[in-house]
Amino acid sequence: MSTKYVYLFSEGNASMKNLLGGKGANLAEMTHIGMPVPQGFTISTEACTKYYEDGEKISPAIEAEIFENLEKMQTLVGKRFGDAENPLLVSVRSGARASMPGMMDTILNLGINDVVAARMAEKSQNPRWAYDSYRRFIVMFADVAMGYERKKFDAVMNELKKERGVTGDNELTADDMVELSNRFKALYKEISGTDFPQEPEVQLMAAIRAVFGSWMNERAIIYRRLNNIPSSWGTAVNVQMMVFGNMGEDCGTGVAFSRDPANGENKLYGEYLMNAQGEDVVAGIRTPESIEQLKFKNSEAYEQFAEAAKKLERHYQDVQDMEFTIEQGKLYMLQTRNGKRTAHAALKIAVDLVAEGITSREEALLKIDPNQLNTLLHPRFDEKALKETKPIANGLAASPGAACGAVYFTAAEAKAGAEKGPVILVRNETNPEDIEGMVAARGILTATGGRTSHAAVVARGMGTCCVAGCGALRIHEDAKYFTVDDVRINEGDTISLDGSTGNVYVGALPLVDATVSGDFATVMGWADEIRCMKVRTNADTPRDAKNAINLGAEGIGLTRTEHMFFEVDRIPAMREMILSDTLEQRRRALAKLLPMQRGDFEGIFEVMGERPVTIRLLDPPLHEFLPTEEKDIRALAEDMEIDFEALKGTIRSMHEANPMMGFRGCRLPVKYPEIAEMQTRAIIEAAINVKKNFGYNLVPEIMIPLTCEFKELKYVSDIVRETADLVIKESGISLDYLVGTMIEIPRAALTADTIAEDAEFFSFGTNDLTQMTFGFSRDDAAKFLPSYYDKNLLENDPFERLDQVGVGKLVEMSCVLGRKTRPDLHLGICGEHGGEPSSVEFCHRCGLDYVSCSPFRVPIARLAAAQAQIKTPREKHHA
Amino acid sequence: MSTKYVYLFSEGNASMKNLLGGKGANLAEMTHIGMPVPQGFTISTEACTKYYEDGEKISPAIEAEIFENLEKMQTLVGKRFGDAENPLLVSVRSGARASMPGMMDTILNLGINDVVAARMAEKSQNPRWAYDSYRRFIVMFADVAMGYERKKFDAVMNELKKERGVTGDNELTADDMVELSNRFKALYKEISGTDFPQEPEVQLMAAIRAVFGSWMNERAIIYRRLNNIPSSWGTAVNVQMMVFGNMGEDCGTGVAFSRDPANGENKLYGEYLMNAQGEDVVAGIRTPESIEQLKFKNSEAYEQFAEAAKKLERHYQDVQDMEFTIEQGKLYMLQTRNGKRTAHAALKIAVDLVAEGITSREEALLKIDPNQLNTLLHPRFDEKALKETKPIANGLAASPGAACGAVYFTAAEAKAGAEKGPVILVRNETNPEDIEGMVAARGILTATGGRTSHAAVVARGMGTCCVAGCGALRIHEDAKYFTVDDVRINEGDTISLDGSTGNVYVGALPLVDATVSGDFATVMGWADEIRCMKVRTNADTPRDAKNAINLGAEGIGLTRTEHMFFEVDRIPAMREMILSDTLEQRRRALAKLLPMQRGDFEGIFEVMGERPVTIRLLDPPLHEFLPTEEKDIRALAEDMEIDFEALKGTIRSMHEANPMMGFRGCRLPVKYPEIAEMQTRAIIEAAINVKKNFGYNLVPEIMIPLTCEFKELKYVSDIVRETADLVIKESGISLDYLVGTMIEIPRAALTADTIAEDAEFFSFGTNDLTQMTFGFSRDDAAKFLPSYYDKNLLENDPFERLDQVGVGKLVEMSCVLGRKTRPDLHLGICGEHGGEPSSVEFCHRCGLDYVSCSPFRVPIARLAAAQAQIKTPREKHHA
Repeated sequence: MSTKYVYLFSEGNASMKNLLGGKGANLAEMTHIGMPVPQGFTISTEACTKYYEDGEKISPAIEAEIFENLEKMQTLVGKRFGDAENPLLVSVRSGARASMPGMMDTILNLGINDVVAARMAEKSQNPRWAYDSYRRFIVMFADVAMGYERKKFDAVMNELKKERGVTGDNELTADDMVELSNRFKALYKEISGTDFPQEPEVQLMAAIRAVFGSWMNERAIIYRRLNNIPSSWGTAVNVQMMVFGNMGEDCGTGVAFSRDPANGENKLYGEYLMNAQGEDVVAGIRTPESIEQLKFKNSEAYEQFAEAAKKLERHYQDVQDMEFTIEQGKLYMLQTRNGKRTAHAALKIAVDLVAEGITSREEALLKIDPNQLNTLLHPRFDEKALKETKPIANGLAASPGAACGAVYFTAAEAKAGAEKGPVILVRNETNPEDIEGMVAARGILTATGGRTSHAAVVARGMGTCCVAGCGALRIHEDAKYFTVDDVRINEGDTISLDGSTGNVYVGALPLVDATVSGDFATVMGWADEIRCMKVRTNADTPRDAKNAINLGAEGIGLTRTEHMFFEVDRIPAMREMILSDTLEQRRRALAKLLPMQRGDFEGIFEVMGERPVTIRLLDPPLHEFLPTEEKDIRALAEDMEIDFEALKGTIRSMHEANPMMGFRGCRLPVKYPEIAEMQTRAIIEAAINVKKNFGYNLVPEIMIPLTCEFKELKYVSDIVRETADLVIKESGISLDYLVGTMIEIPRAALTADTIAEDAEFFSFGTNDLTQMTFGFSRDDAAKFLPSYYDKNLLENDPFERLDQVGVGKLVEMSCVLGRKTRPDLHLGICGEHGGEPSSVEFCHRCGLDYVSCSPFRVPIARLAAAQAQIKTPREKHHA
Repeated sequence: MSTKYVYLFSEGNASMKNLLGGKGANLAEMTHIGMPVPQGFTISTEACTKYYEDGEKISPAIEAEIFENLEKMQTLVGKRFGDAENPLLVSVRSGARASMPGMMDTILNLGINDVVAARMAEKSQNPRWAYDSYRRFIVMFADVAMGYERKKFDAVMNELKKERGVTGDNELTADDMVELSNRFKALYKEISGTDFPQEPEVQLMAAIRAVFGSWMNERAIIYRRLNNIPSSWGTAVNVQMMVFGNMGEDCGTGVAFSRDPANGENKLYGEYLMNAQGEDVVAGIRTPESIEQLKFKNSEAYEQFAEAAKKLERHYQDVQDMEFTIEQGKLYMLQTRNGKRTAHAALKIAVDLVAEGITSREEALLKIDPNQLNTLLHPRFDEKALKETKPIANGLAASPGAACGAVYFTAAEAKAGAEKGPVILVRNETNPEDIEGMVAARGILTATGGRTSHAAVVARGMGTCCVAGCGALRIHEDAKYFTVDDVRINEGDTISLDGSTGNVYVGALPLVDATVSGDFATVMGWADEIRCMKVRTNADTPRDAKNAINLGAEGIGLTRTEHMFFEVDRIPAMREMILSDTLEQRRRALAKLLPMQRGDFEGIFEVMGERPVTIRLLDPPLHEFLPTEEKDIRALAEDMEIDFEALKGTIRSMHEANPMMGFRGCRLPVKYPEIAEMQTRAIIEAAINVKKNFGYNLVPEIMIPLTCEFKELKYVSDIVRETADLVIKESGISLDYLVGTMIEIPRAALTADTIAEDAEFFSFGTNDLTQMTFGFSRDDAAKFLPSYYDKNLLENDPFERLDQVGVGKLVEMSCVLGRKTRPDLHLGICGEHGGEPSSVEFCHRCGLDYVSCSPFRVPIARLAAAQAQIKTPREKHHA
């Protein structure tokens, strides 16, 4: 059986969105439930895919099917293409699965030509309407289907208005419209070299081809990338009988929401224009009126629409965003879809719809975009101020929130500056040595680096606003200023950063505090009841941990132990440890670090109580703790009373060609077991102290990073377990603890069955796993990934959304292999993906016990986990 | 049923090597075929494994089993432990699956004590024999079982000899032996604090524990690593009744081969000593006589032995390496095993054994170690000179062969120096800019870098001798000298490098040319008939290609196109291309490179004729072609007439944190398609020219590196195919070509089913695949891998032998997934592993069509491929 590519509206329904696009499926659905919909047909998304497979051609078979359905449609509505007595005019509109503003949208009045227009004018006694329709069609066809410049046509129209001495389009007379149609046709011929096409069939096929073609235009590709829409989906084309809002003052057209999309209030919200066609409402040529005014202008039409809106809202169990036309007092529905809304509105609407009995909690939860919650969790700039202020630059929205402060170019100066007031740290890129300046800053701005650069990762962890990779910045660190084009910002000048948009502003924009409304709490409560995955947080400090608990975190999935060592009072001992020549020297230096680490862990355990806490052993290459600049090396040599040249030589010998795959992670304790001993002792002693002092029955989880082989893991875990058991025995207090590993190296995933013989838990480090699986260094990928997006070779940043095809295959494999060996193996994720909704859903399907993410992403993960459970129910694996 | 841990010799056979060790299995086998073997029992390798599982203890159950078998043995031989009238004395010897010189070897005469020795002396009327046996046992027990210093005992003996005024051990009288026994016992007590153990059972258990313990001593661990023996194998222990070669002049002991292991000649080869025990033959205290002399000394014993040797050789179908003892004129066989031999001998013996009808070609091939062929393929130093000269340093044997020459410290100086005579290039490490110096040098010596460092890889590719990672070198490049300890070598001084041992010598050692004997050709002929995998070579120049063909290569599996660009006449155009700001500039620079590349490929195609040639598109990061030193950047800026600061900035902006995972491979043409266009044009034009001029019907294979995603591959392959088709059309000549990809990124392996929709062939780049799968940067792994070997966490260098568990899983997965999509998908490997025998065998099992390796490894791969087919026969996948 050959594929069916064209469907009458009466043949489809709302569930056929993939095939008919959102618009087509909803037109079909409305037809079914008896709404007043002008009839027509939809050419499916598969036809679009085939168009590209066939080398951007509509195959003869599909063309035949289109005309077959046109025939049926003509019979249905009793009008025909080109029949001057009873002409069929249609709209042609694109409609993908997801709404896509980047694409060609609409051509109205298709089917009109010289003969039809003349007879329409005559029969209707309304020549202005007939030629208004014609001139509109000519421009839309020229612009949208043929790609000619619209402004040339606008110029002709403005010229005519000038000649007539009028300003508004509606002041033009019927004769003016005839004149305009003629001038437009002449202009069309001038541009194209051919007459304006008079055959409706030719017009139709050109319009359909234009819709398909617009799927691959640049704006559409960019929009898809930003919104995670695969290019393989394709778009459908809707061909619908025209009804006319421009036949006179008893006609009109409008768009409206069934509830207020800004605040969620339960009242119609929208605009309309009388005697107009749809494009006028959005084009801003005439100012539309609020939908409430329609009540007074045409109460019957208003009531028809209000009733339709309620009916559709109940039917779809969601707020509807609708288009309508009133033709001579009669309402026609042209489109409906679930309405986009602000985060605040989304929460209120969800709570209200459930309270009104319109929908279930589960359905209501599914309709909230988890990513939207982001905006509720950070301070933000005043909307009005934002509208009025032009950014000087735009970078990556690396960590949400808003911040104003004085600019400083080094960590030390930022820290000093922060004592006087809020500061923004501006660097080409940050590195671990900058940590204190980053902690002190309200916001971080970098010129290079991506969403997973050091600045971005650390900022998200701390909940600090960050704009990264702002390429327009020219930073002159030594001279203490930066420029963007001809704007110069000196040290101490105030700027504002919007971490949710990536915008950078001069001066201080007014801030609005984040508020968590009651609806937010209600919705989170539903999510917590439903979801079966736990949500933990990545937190390195008691402050982060406390913050995360407030946002609903149920434990810590990742405490990094390295950031602590960069603090001023610790780095000397750390450096002493790294530069030790002998085991004894190293042990001496480690002994200095022990009480500091123990204190760190005590602070975290106190905050977390009996909630699980996973602590990762030291991970980064040791050379990251050493200076690289000549003058810093000289200072260190003096401090440590060692020879400068010798120290320089040592530092050089520690240099690595590819540090990401170098001497780090569990490779450190394989060479220097005493590091793992010290860290284990610090963790276990801290746990025992907190157990003694607070009575918490806590079970610390010690995590070994960068494992690639069972024997390697066993070697390190033996050290950890022996040390832990010794410390516990010394203390005379009983304590349970777990030892597990990160799965972040492909080989660990491939050999997860043997790894699980030793590990009591796995935590997927999907940042590194993504790097190794793709062979993408996240520090360097900005050099080539933009080409991949431009050329549509990668649809998402794999460091942002987990690549389910490749990286995900390794995650799945690990879960299956690991649980084959150890059925109660505890599984979690602590990579950046743990707070990204599609990745959370994937983790749920893989059977993970928890996800762990930055504190500010915890509510997002809670909602995403609930949505995953609603979509794909599973048994809880662990209590 | 409980495991059986102890086997009488009569219970085993040769096939039980894994359980009984080589020695034990062969003793059992000899027992079965009726050879005169003193009886005994073997404690299995599993008992050794259990010993370690039980925390280095012999379990009571195993101890009971040992004594049960001792009882059976005593019944069998009619002697008993501690029975002075008829005492059982035994030897205790280790015996792993593979012979392991690093381990404890032998304790003889165990069971002797004061009482037994006295009665033995009396009954035999041979007190010298009795106390000679006793004093030997005390030393061996003290040394081998207890770990006391042997030299202390030697000192006591030398003291006595001095007192007696004699020099040879055999000049000591019976009374001297009694005295020596007493002095040894006293020394033993002094060291240990306890009396020398008198109970044979206690002696036995101590000896067994010592054998097990020696499995994990440092020498054994190092030996295992060097010889790729897993530590999980364990060692067996053989307890065998003593027979005595030291009872008088009708007694003796010896070791001999059934053929000459040095040259393969078919005659007995070995040594013996009369009135001696085994240790004397090897200890060098007395000079043993050639086995041929035995014919005259004791023709009966000689005939017995010669007959036994022939019988064993026929039985095992291989040269035997045997130990025997003659007790009062009667021959006893104490051990037999397949004899180790030189590469020359191995080939001659294989050919002779087949000619004599003793074995089949297949069996003969299996007995040649492919790695041994290495020594036949390179010039080498005169053996005598090697013995007489002490190396000044030892590095990694990175590329085999031997070379002498004058030392130079930069590529340019080496190149200049080479015009005057042979040179050795000495560098801390090499980089692609050094290529001309490397080509000019006879040998390359580096202070850092491993077996897969740039120097090593390039040297192997060129067949140039290389010693890498020679850590003792202190190179002072600016002052033009290096030191090793207190030896100083200046520029121009001559040194010698042995790339097969890693040794470095002062001065010029005499060289011996490589010869390929007729036997070599015969054996290779058999291998070629049997194997079903093809063997190609990695070659970048016509010279390499010609060399590889001479060594049997059937095609090129990898031509890198980057080395060519480092040549002096090309690098300016290359740099111009890289530094282009616009597409036009880049195209102009590429146009300059086109004729040079075309010429390169023409040269290779001419040599290769109709053999397949796979050419890989440009792979390394572009910044590798740019200078990094300030002065070189300045020179380049002058050459190119651009601003120095701007150039420096550009070079800095191209710096990558992890270049291995950065902007390279197919990521280059994704951003700059014109590079792939130029290279494709060069390949196809060259192929067409060679087809026209020589009539070869060649089919070039174009390979896209570093693919991670189908759409990425498709984008690049579309450019390649479109360009190729265009060039072919322009030429008016028909030409077939293939487009395929490297599989070297884990994600490519994981998604091989979709990748194969586009790729016509896969070539596994197992170097990079190993890096990404382990997360090991091969440039940096030397910082931590030694700890892994020391601690027994990794048994092999995964860059040398393919890791079949992890990396191999990805290779297998790719083969299965790829052929599911495209059943005729052509599969090969071009990583360094393609010439390593165990990896070649793995490739065979995965169903690969060919392996590709350095020219000098081609014969090794041919043999290994044949052995793989013999062990695991498979159908040829392609013709």
